[in-house]
Amino acid sequence: MHGIGPPLVTPFTEDGDVDDAALRDLVGWVEARGVDFLVPCGSNSEAELMTADERARVVETVVDEASVPVLAGTGHPGRRETLQQTERAADAGADAALVITPFYYHHTHDALEAYYESVADESPLPVYLYSVPAYTDVALDPELVGRLSTHGNVHGMKDSSGSIDAFVRSKRATAEEDFDLLVGSGGVLAPALDAGGAGGVLALANVAPEAAAEVFRLHRAGDDDAARALNAELVELNRAVTAEYSVPGLKAAMRARGAPAGHVRSPHQPVGAETREELESLVDRLETLVSGF
Amino acid sequence: MHGIGPPLVTPFTEDGDVDDAALRDLVGWVEARGVDFLVPCGSNSEAELMTADERARVVETVVDEASVPVLAGTGHPGRRETLQQTERAADAGADAALVITPFYYHHTHDALEAYYESVADESPLPVYLYSVPAYTDVALDPELVGRLSTHGNVHGMKDSSGSIDAFVRSKRATAEEDFDLLVGSGGVLAPALDAGGAGGVLALANVAPEAAAEVFRLHRAGDDDAARALNAELVELNRAVTAEYSVPGLKAAMRARGAPAGHVRSPHQPVGAETREELESLVDRLETLVSGF
Amino acid sequence: MHGIGPPLVTPFTEDGDVDDAALRDLVGWVEARGVDFLVPCGSNSEAELMTADERARVVETVVDEASVPVLAGTGHPGRRETLQQTERAADAGADAALVITPFYYHHTHDALEAYYESVADESPLPVYLYSVPAYTDVALDPELVGRLSTHGNVHGMKDSSGSIDAFVRSKRATAEEDFDLLVGSGGVLAPALDAGGAGGVLALANVAPEAAAEVFRLHRAGDDDAARALNAELVELNRAVTAEYSVPGLKAAMRARGAPAGHVRSPHQPVGAETREELESLVDRLETLVSGF
Amino acid sequence: MHGIGPPLVTPFTEDGDVDDAALRDLVGWVEARGVDFLVPCGSNSEAELMTADERARVVETVVDEASVPVLAGTGHPGRRETLQQTERAADAGADAALVITPFYYHHTHDALEAYYESVADESPLPVYLYSVPAYTDVALDPELVGRLSTHGNVHGMKDSSGSIDAFVRSKRATAEEDFDLLVGSGGVLAPALDAGGAGGVLALANVAPEAAAEVFRLHRAGDDDAARALNAELVELNRAVTAEYSVPGLKAAMRARGAPAGHVRSPHQPVGAETREELESLVDRLETLVSGF
Repeated sequence: MHGIGPPLVTPFTEDGDVDDAALRDLVGWVEARGVDFLVPCGSNSEAELMTADERARVVETVVDEASVPVLAGTGHPGRRETLQQTERAADAGADAALVITPFYYHHTHDALEAYYESVADESPLPVYLYSVPAYTDVALDPELVGRLSTHGNVHGMKDSSGSIDAFVRSKRATAEEDFDLLVGSGGVLAPALDAGGAGGVLALANVAPEAAAEVFRLHRAGDDDAARALNAELVELNRAVTAEYSVPGLKAAMRARGAPAGHVRSPHQPVGAETREELESLVDRLETLVSGF
Repeated sequence: MHGIGPPLVTPFTEDGDVDDAALRDLVGWVEARGVDFLVPCGSNSEAELMTADERARVVETVVDEASVPVLAGTGHPGRRETLQQTERAADAGADAALVITPFYYHHTHDALEAYYESVADESPLPVYLYSVPAYTDVALDPELVGRLSTHGNVHGMKDSSGSIDAFVRSKRATAEEDFDLLVGSGGVLAPALDAGGAGGVLALANVAPEAAAEVFRLHRAGDDDAARALNAELVELNRAVTAEYSVPGLKAAMRARGAPAGHVRSPHQPVGAETREELESLVDRLETLVSGF
Repeated sequence: MHGIGPPLVTPFTEDGDVDDAALRDLVGWVEARGVDFLVPCGSNSEAELMTADERARVVETVVDEASVPVLAGTGHPGRRETLQQTERAADAGADAALVITPFYYHHTHDALEAYYESVADESPLPVYLYSVPAYTDVALDPELVGRLSTHGNVHGMKDSSGSIDAFVRSKRATAEEDFDLLVGSGGVLAPALDAGGAGGVLALANVAPEAAAEVFRLHRAGDDDAARALNAELVELNRAVTAEYSVPGLKAAMRARGAPAGHVRSPHQPVGAETREELESLVDRLETLVSGF
Repeated sequence: MHGIGPPLVTPFTEDGDVDDAALRDLVGWVEARGVDFLVPCGSNSEAELMTADERARVVETVVDEASVPVLAGTGHPGRRETLQQTERAADAGADAALVITPFYYHHTHDALEAYYESVADESPLPVYLYSVPAYTDVALDPELVGRLSTHGNVHGMKDSSGSIDAFVRSKRATAEEDFDLLVGSGGVLAPALDAGGAGGVLALANVAPEAAAEVFRLHRAGDDDAARALNAELVELNRAVTAEYSVPGLKAAMRARGAPAGHVRSPHQPVGAETREELESLVDRLETLVSGF
């Protein structure tokens, strides 16, 4: 996986059902704006609020609609369900599996290593590690990432720690392997590319896919300064749709852009009027920005 | 729910399957030691490592085998799956549902309140709140507990915060209601009963059911001092099977007692030899203690 | 040290100077309400906002005015200043030194053990350990407390963790020694006394000294139930003057009672009008309560 | 302040006294290796383990010996001592004051803003904000940094959060002002310079001053790629002397290079043999690296 892959939100109807039609529209909406691959059932998808069947169907729908590769989120706190979901993603035609560090229970680094090795041994799909301490309270150590990268079926990682220092260390620890190091924080896309990152899986790419894609394009064209300057224009919006207002903020911002984001699912609550206005103002600035591309 | 209810571990075979026969044996083993109710699919059950179907079957098996009331863990990060699991528990004949605070995503107290009200509105079973910040990073505020206790279908709470201060405040906030305040930390069972607690749902009650039941019996008989003195004898074992070594430690200690605890499931790893010896020594002390009842 | 010892606030003038006269008045105010000892320069004193000289003078003033024993806070992140302040407290006539776990830098448990041994070796005053994780992010482990209790110059501990489980374990770990285990959380005074605590060093005892003293008196008289019932009446006020509004809330509540609390020192800011009203309402309830003693 | 400024360690004798001669040697040692300014009494100096007098003398010594500007750490949990230390630093001839966010007590962002404004109003030296959440548990918000940057006596900031995302946002929030944004994490020096940073105040610059200076020089010369590549070679050493082994590790690594680092002060303990060997190996790699400049 290279370039920009949005961790797709899942549009829900007002009643809380998965809105398949809107999901298909969303695939088209982001593809039309230049993304390189798609990531259904990541954290931004509210996957943890869906049943296993719903998650499998979301992957199926996205694979069916997509014209770019699909990296499907299949991780779960337990190994068995992780493998089941990975098999269903493989059956649906996904290209690779994004496997989050097992959460809820606390595990040692040794247990995490054994877990990933065992999952990679049996997974029918190439495995991408996924480290997102804001949700799981655990960050994969670069040394551990280095050891896991030598497994033939571990192909990369999404690092959502936000730490460029850790990103650089993971890059060094995996330098001998063919390993796609993807960044999961839109605020540091350009620095991560500077550090040898293969691309980004960014909440931001749901609401501003063309802008994220442009940062990647500028970087690949060798214009690092322009890539960083454009990325800097996106940091306030990025923060608002992640740390500040989370998925409800992301979906509100997407709706402000006209994207088929749908509703949130309980326990998520829609953002209030004041937050929505703040997001709309950030989206207005974004529209001005992307109109210049 | 009053008295002592063990949050039953789930025995797995060496291959990681749910061991139904051992689970039935376990129900008999704890019931023979005087517990008052059973709690399948709580945190100690490794519920988060099971599929929804497996969890539903565990509840069915326990209900089928039990001769005491069953409080079934049915909570999930999302409302939809929580309600599905609650319905399945109701169909199986469980008496009430234990609903953990939704985890993974971070929610405001307002969102938590809306969530519990909405779950309680639709739940076919009486709802018990479940607050376990060690796993979820969120503690239910006593004021919020007070407001939720006025809902006709919210019947109680398991408080695993370990804080007697919070327990007392929750007791005061719910004093007008018929509300079973259960403590979830074996180290503070006696102080929680002193504070008006209805009982305890304790990992400790998996390995030392007769000891936990004796603390409760002594307290109900008015001998608070003896209850506290006995509880004090259990604090090191309690810590070892919870904060220190977690579920793998709990299962190892149970096996040392001859209880049908079974294996852990991945990503959990069995404890090492040194830890097992420490646990065996604590169990030896327990055997001496309970032989005196 | 036995019974109730208020960790005295330090009254500051509007200009931020230590108000010696008010401090002397405060000593009289709390002594008149039945406290057993005094604790100047604890966390509630804003000691960390004072210079070393100011802290030494506060101890001198309190010792000079007191007619009960004085446990002086002398701890500092570094060993050298801790010993200097302890010597000054000894020169002033304090009876013992309260030594907080060294904060700011992160230390291993081995380093903490070496630190306390070295301080106790040289301290001219008996040393009381002080564990307050809300401020320092580190809690003294009961096993470590047990080892330190065997040092001839370590006489006790103030445990402000709020955990009765840890309190019971520390009590057991120090059972062979003459060791005063004092609780630092007003919400769990009665349970701590039930667990064998020697008394309490409580922010609450600044604003409600007679109520804290009455909990202790009831407990010593063997009426545990009445002690707990009275303690339960104090939990909301206690929370308001600690976790909720901290020292500015404590001083505002004291002023509402007519106690000579003085102003806070920068960076502390006075509480706003809404908080002040909430505190006044809690103090009104307290006045009703204590009028019944 | 521009370029590289080492937050100087304070050499202590084996007895724990400040070793003035070694401190003077250290100033010479780092200046000979090309640093641009000096920072006595930052976190790496063990300032929190020194008395106020010792800290003032350390600043005096460094100013007296230095031939480059001096940014003196003068912050304290309380405003009064912060101002006293700032005045002493001004008297000694320091060029600016580095003022850490007040720690120990927890303050709201409003209280932090009022504190910094009040300190800047009265400070005889230009004030640099200092945010180091690893020690203080609070990070200065970029919006707050932006507001404070408009104060005439606030000239810059040391950001040791490690977050390039926050660094970029602070850069944007202070873009209208003459404001030196310095990075405090050696692992992200190059990305911080890419983001418009004025330089770095880096523990790493105590042990590898010439390497940090070379990263800065390469960047200023327009060779961003070489700057980043060199920075990447330093990340493992940087981590070892900061998050991994802290000040004791830093001093051990410096001694391995032959720098006059001296001993640590209690409660710090020297690193063990295994850690020392790991550090020596990292220093060997560093020597090879710098021999190529």
